[in-house]
Amino acid sequence: MQNILPLHLFEELEAITGSQYLFLDEETRRHYGHDETEDYNFPPSVVVKPGTPEEISAIMKLANEYKIPVVPIGGRTGLSGGALSIHGGIGLSMERFTKIEIDENNLQAIVEPAVITQVFREAAFEKGLFYPPDPSSQGSCTIGGNVAENAGGARALKYGVTKDYVLNLQVVLPNGDIIWTGANTLKNSTGYNLTQLMVGSEGTLGIITKIVMKLLPKNNHNILMLVPFFKSAQACEAVAEIFRAGIVPSALEFMERDAIDWTLRFVDGVSIDIKDEVEAHLLIEVDGNYPDVLFVEAEKIMGVLERFEIDEILFADTEDQKNALWKIRRAVGEAVKSNSVYKEEDTVVPRYELPRLLEGIKDAGWKYGFKSVCYGHAGDGNLHVNIIKGDMTDENWKTEVPKGIREIFELTVSLKGTLSGEHGIGYVQKSYMDIAFTNGHLQLMKGIKRLFDPNNILNPGKVLPDNL
Amino acid sequence: MQNILPLHLFEELEAITGSQYLFLDEETRRHYGHDETEDYNFPPSVVVKPGTPEEISAIMKLANEYKIPVVPIGGRTGLSGGALSIHGGIGLSMERFTKIEIDENNLQAIVEPAVITQVFREAAFEKGLFYPPDPSSQGSCTIGGNVAENAGGARALKYGVTKDYVLNLQVVLPNGDIIWTGANTLKNSTGYNLTQLMVGSEGTLGIITKIVMKLLPKNNHNILMLVPFFKSAQACEAVAEIFRAGIVPSALEFMERDAIDWTLRFVDGVSIDIKDEVEAHLLIEVDGNYPDVLFVEAEKIMGVLERFEIDEILFADTEDQKNALWKIRRAVGEAVKSNSVYKEEDTVVPRYELPRLLEGIKDAGWKYGFKSVCYGHAGDGNLHVNIIKGDMTDENWKTEVPKGIREIFELTVSLKGTLSGEHGIGYVQKSYMDIAFTNGHLQLMKGIKRLFDPNNILNPGKVLPDNL
Repeated sequence: MQNILPLHLFEELEAITGSQYLFLDEETRRHYGHDETEDYNFPPSVVVKPGTPEEISAIMKLANEYKIPVVPIGGRTGLSGGALSIHGGIGLSMERFTKIEIDENNLQAIVEPAVITQVFREAAFEKGLFYPPDPSSQGSCTIGGNVAENAGGARALKYGVTKDYVLNLQVVLPNGDIIWTGANTLKNSTGYNLTQLMVGSEGTLGIITKIVMKLLPKNNHNILMLVPFFKSAQACEAVAEIFRAGIVPSALEFMERDAIDWTLRFVDGVSIDIKDEVEAHLLIEVDGNYPDVLFVEAEKIMGVLERFEIDEILFADTEDQKNALWKIRRAVGEAVKSNSVYKEEDTVVPRYELPRLLEGIKDAGWKYGFKSVCYGHAGDGNLHVNIIKGDMTDENWKTEVPKGIREIFELTVSLKGTLSGEHGIGYVQKSYMDIAFTNGHLQLMKGIKRLFDPNNILNPGKVLPDNL
Repeated sequence: MQNILPLHLFEELEAITGSQYLFLDEETRRHYGHDETEDYNFPPSVVVKPGTPEEISAIMKLANEYKIPVVPIGGRTGLSGGALSIHGGIGLSMERFTKIEIDENNLQAIVEPAVITQVFREAAFEKGLFYPPDPSSQGSCTIGGNVAENAGGARALKYGVTKDYVLNLQVVLPNGDIIWTGANTLKNSTGYNLTQLMVGSEGTLGIITKIVMKLLPKNNHNILMLVPFFKSAQACEAVAEIFRAGIVPSALEFMERDAIDWTLRFVDGVSIDIKDEVEAHLLIEVDGNYPDVLFVEAEKIMGVLERFEIDEILFADTEDQKNALWKIRRAVGEAVKSNSVYKEEDTVVPRYELPRLLEGIKDAGWKYGFKSVCYGHAGDGNLHVNIIKGDMTDENWKTEVPKGIREIFELTVSLKGTLSGEHGIGYVQKSYMDIAFTNGHLQLMKGIKRLFDPNNILNPGKVLPDNL
């Protein structure tokens, strides 16, 4: 791969997109050089903003000719560094792909990748339809990035993740071919499933230019409750018990005490009284079309919760109260990060194993000298672990923390879980892939990458370990 | 590929499985030489019945050494010829893989591939859990075959298809490696999704030896109604209208008049009075935990149906009546086939396009001189087209019907649908793959096949067109 770009490349890029969509200045390059992953900044050598799949196709052909990296860039809210131009090259900002077309007849939508997730969700709501995936960053992340990372969010336990809504993709392949991966149908048994191979491939196998999404009829009611637990472990245990009682909540979020305390200090205009002895909270939502049914389900949940040591349950009675609780939950990540240098892991296990996972994380912290703040989507066993630098020495941060992370990942895998539930592997987790996969398995993945992208120009250095 | 097997191969196979699991006699070979696809019989040269993944691994290594085809064989209920040993070789019957392990704590199950789908569903029911996919052949098809073909069934419109329940797979790769493709989690963004690449790959990329399935809490109530339409086209139109009214039925099945008439003659002990003017029926089910809610939804559906020309709706009041209606629906395929030589196509389109599809199918029949009987899972746009030979000449059957099928498939693709919704491509549809995919796209699929199986020994001659 070449890092120094030949001058006439810029002329050729300009001929494709027009000069107004080509940027070489440092400010722009640095702007597109970071996402939300720690404090990394890897600026691309040039930023282009193509407007059509055909322009992207021409760019890919050029990049193959010159063997220059191309990194697709979406909302830059990623937490695994998937959009970082770690080898420089062409930063391909997808921001001009913003169309939404809702097909009410088929309960589907054709969405372009730069559409903000929340904008898409609201456009669907307006037509009485529902796009469930709602990553915490929904106000700024894009649908294209959601597909690339197979994003989840708070409603995945009932409604599934991004992959469960993607029916078909228009993709520019690394060689410049433009294909539709599948069909706009709910069922498909026609050839190998390249749609699902593309979802979650973190922009390394193709550039997504259109997404056909399945939609559901909207439901109109929900009940939201915040449950304070005197013991963290019991909050984790309660999660599986609720499902075992036959309830599928629409959200079931876990927050350690520090997570909620730090967030209450970070977020304006929201306050909750919490007893000192409370160690963790569950935020539980049920949703549906029939309020009576929701009351019955809420009662059943309370029946389960009675078996644990909890303080008084807070029910959000108004839309404002609901929004305030969700605002807290969504701000946890940012609040925790604003507190200290940190590393975030996106562990996921079968939900019944959560208490084992939490215990193991705390043990690893004790062993390697770090504090962790845990929160996340407990309903699907997805626990975000924020490892806090605090007053740890730089030396220990560099040498001890990776050992602790490795032990935590080894634990997730031994519990039949894996490294990432919804953030992806990207740049920052690739060196741990050997924990989840055998060498032969990783070689198969590498073979797929090589098949799609023989010159290794599309988002190189992501997902797969370097030493493979 | 070798078709004549060296004698010492049998000795080596015998050393792996033991002689009691090795069969060379013609009767056994012919028994494993057919599935439910038309009247094909392609016997394997030898039938083996391995008992462990390790035995399969040893068999694959042997087959690679001798370049001998291996065809995994499940319940042999397939409709696209996926389990036919078209090049002879080793017929690998999975029938000894019959364990079910239900994990009530995580709402999951580990199922071995030879478990009959209905047996698995009932085992889940007994624990208060629900495995929704229910192909019409559920009484004899196997879970492994369901995964290989990405089977659907009548409940897919609400609950999704097989792929939506597969969390993780233990697979013996063509080179003999045994891997787990993913993790036992509801969310996973860790590397390329080999789980979903394996689902629907029709036994050409690996041999599935264990399946981790997601389960749901069981629901206890449903309402089932049979709706006679005086116009077939209106029955198709009503399908999308029901969804547009905000209802997601748990089943929405379409049957042309011939389909139901032939089935009533074929099935014992069931009778329904149908007016001569009725052209088609919809069988509609809603399900859930709350009978009151189901009555509300049934009322809403009746509100939609009022807009169409229908005869009196038949409500199934008892379990016996429900079973009788489902018995009819499930027997349609067999009944139609018992009537004449036939070819079955598994067309699928976005559901609003169903009336266009049905009209196009009838036009093609008129143009090429064949009669068709259509029925299927209208709720997800999946229409089974049985092309009936009747008194057509052998010559026309051979030359004209394929032209008609090609036109029908071209129509499905132009309507944003595709060739197969749930039966797979297998042996009988592979020559139509160029309609759904560009050559570059098919070359990618072939590249994947080559990557997994460089000697092309695992189920060769399936899915991809011969001339690729």
